Amino acid sequence: MRNIKIIAEYDGTNYHGWQRQKGLLTLQQLLEESIGQITGENVTVIGAGRTDARVHAHNQSAHFKINSLIGTRNLLLGINSLLPTDVVVKELKEMDEVFHARFDVKSKVYMYQIHNAPVRSALYRDYAWHVRAPLDLEKMNKCFSVLKGTHDFSSFCGKKGSDVSCVRTIKDVCIEKTCPELMRIFIEADGFLRYMARTIVGTMVEVGMGRRMPKDLSDILAARDRGRAGITAPPHGLFLIEVKY
Amino acid sequence: MRNIKIIAEYDGTNYHGWQRQKGLLTLQQLLEESIGQITGENVTVIGAGRTDARVHAHNQSAHFKINSLIGTRNLLLGINSLLPTDVVVKELKEMDEVFHARFDVKSKVYMYQIHNAPVRSALYRDYAWHVRAPLDLEKMNKCFSVLKGTHDFSSFCGKKGSDVSCVRTIKDVCIEKTCPELMRIFIEADGFLRYMARTIVGTMVEVGMGRRMPKDLSDILAARDRGRAGITAPPHGLFLIEVKY
Repeated sequence: MRNIKIIAEYDGTNYHGWQRQKGLLTLQQLLEESIGQITGENVTVIGAGRTDARVHAHNQSAHFKINSLIGTRNLLLGINSLLPTDVVVKELKEMDEVFHARFDVKSKVYMYQIHNAPVRSALYRDYAWHVRAPLDLEKMNKCFSVLKGTHDFSSFCGKKGSDVSCVRTIKDVCIEKTCPELMRIFIEADGFLRYMARTIVGTMVEVGMGRRMPKDLSDILAARDRGRAGITAPPHGLFLIEVKY
Repeated sequence: MRNIKIIAEYDGTNYHGWQRQKGLLTLQQLLEESIGQITGENVTVIGAGRTDARVHAHNQSAHFKINSLIGTRNLLLGINSLLPTDVVVKELKEMDEVFHARFDVKSKVYMYQIHNAPVRSALYRDYAWHVRAPLDLEKMNKCFSVLKGTHDFSSFCGKKGSDVSCVRTIKDVCIEKTCPELMRIFIEADGFLRYMARTIVGTMVEVGMGRRMPKDLSDILAARDRGRAGITAPPHGLFLIEVKY
C-alpha cells in the first residue's frame, strides 16, 4: 500500500479537536471522509498528535495508507475541493511504508498567542487569550532556564495514565512580542503531555502577573503534582506550528 | 454637548462595511445603537472614513455627541457589553467641541495582507488575499518611489464625482514580510479615494507577477484613467491600522 504524509492547516474554532468522536465534528473525521470520497477507500488518518477543541494548526502532520494510484497533486486538489474553507491540506508526500506520523516525531513546536491589553480584541477573539493584567515579560523570560531540558512534567499534565512516563524534553522556549499588545510563546519539545503547553503558558502568565516567582517553577516541577502548577490557558490561543521528523 | 472620540476595532467579515445602509448590518449602525442604548439618546457616529464590506479595522476613529453625564469608562464598558465579539471599542476620549473625526484627519494608515502560496490558507481565509503566483518582492518595492508623494490618483479611484479632486499625498509605502508566505503592504496617505488602497495593491501585485513593470506606474498615474491601473484587490485583506490627527 502507498503511505502518504499529509501537512494540514486548520482553524480549530468550529471543531471538536483532532480525534474522531462519535457525533462530534472533528478534523480527523473530516480528512478521512474527504480522502475516502476521492479514493473510494476506507482510510484512517493518523495524526502526529491530537489537538484539543478550538486549538489551531499551521502545520499538523499525519499519514494514511491507500491503494489508489491517483497522483498526489490531483489527490491534494481533490481533497481541498471537498474541505470547508477553515481546513486545508498544504502538502501530500509519498513516504516509505514504515513512516509513522506519530511514532517518528522528533519534536513539535507549539505557539501560544496572548492578547495583553485592558480591552478585549475583536480580531484576535478566536486566536489569542485575552489577559487584562499587564504581564512582565522579563519575569516570564526567566522561566525558560527552569523549563528547558529533560524533566518529569507531571505537574503540567492534565489527565494521565498512572503508569505512563511524564518525562519530556523541552528543547526551546521563547517569547516574541510582535506588537505591544501581542505576545507569542513558542515551545519546542520532543513530546507534549495532555494540556502541557497550555498549563505551562497558564503558569508563566501567573509569573508575568507577579503571582508567582520564576524560580517557583523548579518546585512545581519537583512536586510532580498538577495542583501545584497554574491554570490551564484556554485552547483558542494555541497553534501547532510544526512537527519535525 | 459632549463630543467623544471613539477608537474601535472590528473584524469586517460579517458586516456590510462602515456606513449605515437600509436593511444591511453595518458598523456605524451597530455602534450608534449600542451607544444609544446606554445613553438613552439618539446618536450619530461620524467615522474617520468608510471601510467597505469585509474590510477590517485595528483602530477606526469616530466621534459622537451626547448630553448624558455618564463617565467614559462606564460608557465604554456598557457599549462593549452590548457589542458582539467581532466589534469592540478600545478607547473613548472627551474632546473639545470642534473635533471632527473626518475633517481633522491628518493621515490614515492601511495595511493589506497577501497570502502568497500555491495552496489557500485556512487561518488567513478572511484576513488575506490568496495569490498563487510567486510575487517578486524586489519589483514591488520599486513601485514605492513612483507612488510616494502628491499625485492625482484618478487612475486608482473606483467611483468618483467628476468635480472632486483626486489629488492625494502618499506619505509612506512599505512591504513587510513576516514569514515566507505572508506579505504586508502598509500605505500611509493624507486621504484615500474609494478603492484606492485596494487598486494600488492590485496593481502592485501585477508588478510582482511580472505582468507590469514598476516604471509603468508613472504612466498609469499620468493617464488619470481607472482603466489603466490593475485589478481591485479583494476587501478581506485590508485593515485600517491607524488614523492620525
